[in-house]
Amino acid sequence: MTIIEQAEKVKIASQILVGISAEQLNQALNQIATALLAHEKEIIAANELDMEQGRLNRTPDARLDRLMLNEARIKGMASDVSDVAKLPDVLGDFQGFTRPNGLKVTKLSVPLGVVGMIYESRPNVTVDAAILCLKSGNAVLLRGGKEAHHSNQALVNVIKSALVESGLPADAVELVQDTSRETATQMMKLDGYLDLLIPRGGAALIQSVKEHATVPIIETGTGNCHIYINEFADLQMALDILINAKVQRPSVCNACENVVIDKAVASDVLPLIKAALEGHGVQLRGCQATTDIIAVQLASADDFYTEYNDLLLSIKVVDHIDEAILHINEHGTKHSEAIVTENQVYARRFLQRIDAACVYHNASTRFSDGAALGFGAEIGISTQKLHARGPFALKELTTYKYVIEGTGQVRK
Amino acid sequence: MTIIEQAEKVKIASQILVGISAEQLNQALNQIATALLAHEKEIIAANELDMEQGRLNRTPDARLDRLMLNEARIKGMASDVSDVAKLPDVLGDFQGFTRPNGLKVTKLSVPLGVVGMIYESRPNVTVDAAILCLKSGNAVLLRGGKEAHHSNQALVNVIKSALVESGLPADAVELVQDTSRETATQMMKLDGYLDLLIPRGGAALIQSVKEHATVPIIETGTGNCHIYINEFADLQMALDILINAKVQRPSVCNACENVVIDKAVASDVLPLIKAALEGHGVQLRGCQATTDIIAVQLASADDFYTEYNDLLLSIKVVDHIDEAILHINEHGTKHSEAIVTENQVYARRFLQRIDAACVYHNASTRFSDGAALGFGAEIGISTQKLHARGPFALKELTTYKYVIEGTGQVRK
Repeated sequence: MTIIEQAEKVKIASQILVGISAEQLNQALNQIATALLAHEKEIIAANELDMEQGRLNRTPDARLDRLMLNEARIKGMASDVSDVAKLPDVLGDFQGFTRPNGLKVTKLSVPLGVVGMIYESRPNVTVDAAILCLKSGNAVLLRGGKEAHHSNQALVNVIKSALVESGLPADAVELVQDTSRETATQMMKLDGYLDLLIPRGGAALIQSVKEHATVPIIETGTGNCHIYINEFADLQMALDILINAKVQRPSVCNACENVVIDKAVASDVLPLIKAALEGHGVQLRGCQATTDIIAVQLASADDFYTEYNDLLLSIKVVDHIDEAILHINEHGTKHSEAIVTENQVYARRFLQRIDAACVYHNASTRFSDGAALGFGAEIGISTQKLHARGPFALKELTTYKYVIEGTGQVRK
Repeated sequence: MTIIEQAEKVKIASQILVGISAEQLNQALNQIATALLAHEKEIIAANELDMEQGRLNRTPDARLDRLMLNEARIKGMASDVSDVAKLPDVLGDFQGFTRPNGLKVTKLSVPLGVVGMIYESRPNVTVDAAILCLKSGNAVLLRGGKEAHHSNQALVNVIKSALVESGLPADAVELVQDTSRETATQMMKLDGYLDLLIPRGGAALIQSVKEHATVPIIETGTGNCHIYINEFADLQMALDILINAKVQRPSVCNACENVVIDKAVASDVLPLIKAALEGHGVQLRGCQATTDIIAVQLASADDFYTEYNDLLLSIKVVDHIDEAILHINEHGTKHSEAIVTENQVYARRFLQRIDAACVYHNASTRFSDGAALGFGAEIGISTQKLHARGPFALKELTTYKYVIEGTGQVRK
């Protein structure tokens, strides 16, 4: 089946989903959770085919680990699905008013329709994306990576069988069969089929989607996040936050990549940073002023634009808060930025002037995700400003329509 | 100055606009209204240069009329500007809550930043776009058409002088100097400068923006709108609505282009439609079933996909409401669609199943604009589902950010 034929099926399914009750959607999610557990063996067997190919291709261990499914991980998936079923429903919200001419106007929240998703190795994204889309009344066309195709297909088969048992259209969740590079490009141009395309993967994927897509997209996941240690910071707090944001999980998008430090406290705090972070295995790269104080590698101009996603940290010493704000707005990716200070005036200035989805005062950037902020599961962190900013969760998978009811009104 | 240099200036101005109070923004708008009236003569003189060139180029009268500025029109512009200043402010809305770990999370509405706009002949768009962007705290990079460049430049000069008098950065409103086709394409790729690009013009412009843009865009203004006359319609009401939606202003995007009629009432209503609409100078094109009943030209398959923007109407006879819904969802542009019926069950089905920004029951599609629905001035009607659907007005020119305040919290 071609991708267009698949998209056509998903589009029809999305039209059937319109008007399905929240109860029935939640019941389907619970059925999917049950089915994942019941078909554990088939899923693991399919995953083993991908793992074997991965080992033959000498895939690095870290990537193999992301690909791997076992009983515990499938139990985790099933339990995530049940959790999403329990989240508040996001459809059917409305605001209404009546116009002077008697027209009754209602703004009603509705599903987007068909969501497309292009993603890479982790098969759990298959389940996450399908579940969040279904809960919000959307159908979804999934285009996973070749390296996880057997696993993804097994998971989608299980989801489809559960949909059918719940009286929902099996085509509401469809996996693109052809995993060649071509189908990714085709997906970016599925106008008339996709109401939204979400790329989830590295910077190269996001860039390619931005360049080629003619369907609406959400940019997610690029996080060149900063911690700014202001001259009025509680230095111990600053150090704790920096260590957490850099070290706790360096591969994720809300990890810190760069620390900006006021000159006034640089000679106090830099030796502490060097000792603490090198102790955690972090390699430091600093600006000229940094290297005047501690012995670290000189950072290049590129370093300050780089999301390392690794145990690396760049350091920039600035004269004052306004230079810090300029530096961060220039080099950041509008994801998550933090100031550490006890000065409320400076805190307010930073929170107002930094242009990012999440701006922090005296807290770690690592809180920028749906669960940590209390919105439940999410599909990614949006770094653009249209539609949704920050955690892209259930509510962000909806749009609205205006329903206008009259008694024959015409425009004068 | 290159477009990049201009964009850089606008970006810096947008950073200065952050934190300007609503009062100051409104005061600047009123200053612009005053300045437009004070500089009437210069504006008209500049417009006369464009008009002269237009006449030399044998521009059609309808386009020359759109281009033309006179005292009355400038008064109209100034009064629109004052009206926008009086609209409710859209910045600073917020919702907040505290997480179990003590983090205080606030979702705060903020300007998008820099809005880009590509548009064609009408110089009033220059003022509309600048005003709506300023009121919502945004800076704007305008790229108008060559044929209106003198007029646009005169208007922007007046706006800039009023901004300076109000203590706002003159660069908050900037007109692209080079009106070659190249700069339109460059604007579509101004990543890092534009937070949103809005094309306002014909289908060819929208399509080009969809294909080439790497910055976020809003599709506006394509309206292949339908009136569906259900078998349970009040036929007189249906006729009144159809005439209004087709004839009152055929060139606009919320005008009706196609009428869908239930077979059961086709032989009653089609002769009435023919008499009434041909009486208004409308040329009719019908499907086979239509031509079996009234003598009109046979419609091609293309006709049903066409937004005529003219005194033309295509007619489709269907077996029942479900075929009508399928036809409209297939051929429509998700703009505005109406059912005329006295049957509440069918009305509800139509309102639910039609996928469009505005769905109507017993009213004309002509109400789909910001003013008519009570939202004030707008920049266009969005036909996509992301960010904003339907009238794209002040609120839609904002985004939000999460402000997260802590006391040293780190992620466990």
